Amino acid sequence: MEHLWAVVMAGGSGTRFWPSSRAAKPKQLLPLADREGTGETLLAATVRRLAGMVPPERVVVVLAERLVEATAAALPEVPRENLLAEPIGRNTAPCVGWACAWVRRRDPDAVVAVLAADHHIADEEGYRAVIAKAVGAAERGELVTIGIRPTRPETGYGYVEVGDAIGGGVHRVVRFVEKPTRERAEEFLATKKFLWNSGSFFFRADRMLDEIRKSLPQLADTLDALDEAAKAGNETERVRALYPEIRGISIDHGVMEKADGVAVVPGDFGWSDVGSWQTAWELAGKDDAGNAARGEVVLVDAKGCLVLGDGRRVVAVVGVEDLVVVDTPDAVLVVPREQSQRVRDVVEALQKRGRTDVV
Amino acid sequence: MEHLWAVVMAGGSGTRFWPSSRAAKPKQLLPLADREGTGETLLAATVRRLAGMVPPERVVVVLAERLVEATAAALPEVPRENLLAEPIGRNTAPCVGWACAWVRRRDPDAVVAVLAADHHIADEEGYRAVIAKAVGAAERGELVTIGIRPTRPETGYGYVEVGDAIGGGVHRVVRFVEKPTRERAEEFLATKKFLWNSGSFFFRADRMLDEIRKSLPQLADTLDALDEAAKAGNETERVRALYPEIRGISIDHGVMEKADGVAVVPGDFGWSDVGSWQTAWELAGKDDAGNAARGEVVLVDAKGCLVLGDGRRVVAVVGVEDLVVVDTPDAVLVVPREQSQRVRDVVEALQKRGRTDVV
Repeated sequence: MEHLWAVVMAGGSGTRFWPSSRAAKPKQLLPLADREGTGETLLAATVRRLAGMVPPERVVVVLAERLVEATAAALPEVPRENLLAEPIGRNTAPCVGWACAWVRRRDPDAVVAVLAADHHIADEEGYRAVIAKAVGAAERGELVTIGIRPTRPETGYGYVEVGDAIGGGVHRVVRFVEKPTRERAEEFLATKKFLWNSGSFFFRADRMLDEIRKSLPQLADTLDALDEAAKAGNETERVRALYPEIRGISIDHGVMEKADGVAVVPGDFGWSDVGSWQTAWELAGKDDAGNAARGEVVLVDAKGCLVLGDGRRVVAVVGVEDLVVVDTPDAVLVVPREQSQRVRDVVEALQKRGRTDVV
Repeated sequence: MEHLWAVVMAGGSGTRFWPSSRAAKPKQLLPLADREGTGETLLAATVRRLAGMVPPERVVVVLAERLVEATAAALPEVPRENLLAEPIGRNTAPCVGWACAWVRRRDPDAVVAVLAADHHIADEEGYRAVIAKAVGAAERGELVTIGIRPTRPETGYGYVEVGDAIGGGVHRVVRFVEKPTRERAEEFLATKKFLWNSGSFFFRADRMLDEIRKSLPQLADTLDALDEAAKAGNETERVRALYPEIRGISIDHGVMEKADGVAVVPGDFGWSDVGSWQTAWELAGKDDAGNAARGEVVLVDAKGCLVLGDGRRVVAVVGVEDLVVVDTPDAVLVVPREQSQRVRDVVEALQKRGRTDVV
């Protein structure tokens, strides 16, 4: 695997973990599945999981410019030059394209693992075994995705329909399906032929760049210009100039769904996209009453709560069940666990009030 | 009423309003019934209610030494020398005795109104009318208490049994009754002969000092010593030396219950002892959904909540009912309104942890 590179997509902002997540500190920079209390961020865990497969010098992180410092702090072992700063978000196709171009310059035989920066994997050994299969297929020239075996009729994810086995635990993809209705999601679950599209991809860098030239020729031209700029030593300046002109499109829509010979490796390793405080509670270590608490917390007759203090302030929670209480230096959130997706309403209200300092 | 003095008992500490109330900032120094949002403390309201009857120069506040600065700040119009600092709490009899001695030195014909610093009165005009009756009886030499018409079979208060009318809206007291069982409290409510003992008293200072000599001769000797010390100009030093030796006893038990010819004026002026966050919510101004909020608060689908921010930090409360959320610079509390008396469990837990800095 000496040609395996990891491209971690860390461009997301998101508001689902307010008040812990902010524009300047998005989800991937939070220790949201930090069962051992080491403070490991989702991003650091993403890189650590690849230990033994991808050394830090072959980890590339594509991220927003404003997050460079915080990301470098979270990943001290990754060379600073491997942090590719996008001046503006343009969805995942430009992100993947730029990373592939950047990597191919350094390693013409590079195989790239494109990974989300903010997911959680419970069974890391199982995960690495699946990765190994995906990398094997990618080395053989396939465009590979990992599909997660569904455990519920989830309507929040895209799906992948699994086709014939092509050896090595790999299957042909029949088609990608967008977020389904509840009814269709239940059908998908029943047929057992559909997997969740987890958003991680594996391919040779040169193969992906070929696909981009076919499906997104304008992007391919931009990437050519960046290759030229790199030779001239002014890639950063050119990225700043060219990025705003690029059309925003996802790698799924822009490339994978159009390409021939896409493969999928079914995976079953306790994947979670850590979508809400509810999920953070599910992933956290809990006491006998089902409370997950961090910081200087006083619980009196509390059950099933997630209580996150900032470490210094006291957070006292008395006589409540299934509540999320998150305390940060400038904001406090109280919301029932089952309603934690409504955090976005709070962020909207604060934006309307002009309180962008706390979102 | 040129001989009427107010003696405000502001010695209490209490933990029922944690985290807003602290050892250094007890309940009477909080704006707990501040419907107009002016920030008026319960203590300041106690003094303001007497406007027109007792000028600031005739207001005396008996308080703990550590609260002198904060109390002076809450009552800037009251002369600093009128703040009588107890080096240690010894219940209310020594407090009332000292204040009577102090007042009598300045006005041998003084009539004293002994008032709690931390109660709320909804109908202030009605209150002043009742006070006027009580003062009239006190001028005629009676020991007078104000009894509140019960609105529920409360087991948390003492009661006064009302006897014959003696003119001027004043009745003889048959007896004082300690906090009753639920069953007795219901009987009391049914007979209509019992009033809540509100803990405010009216008498001539010299009459009370005579009663103290009869019932608490040791305290009377101490007060004599303080009169001597005042002449010698070292009252403060003598208070510090003598107070620790005084037996702690309440004015109710120590004097009022033993005295002959005690009178009561029934009152019905929206009295509250502001006993818990639940009461603070009841007294507060509320929005259409029954929420009382102060500070930078974001409410999303919240009902019947009391949410107190510290003014700068954002407090977001989503999808909950009847919850108390109190945010202070070093502590946050979340508790259902109906359980707000359990705040004391939090304070106990913090004391056990040695976190006396936050209680």
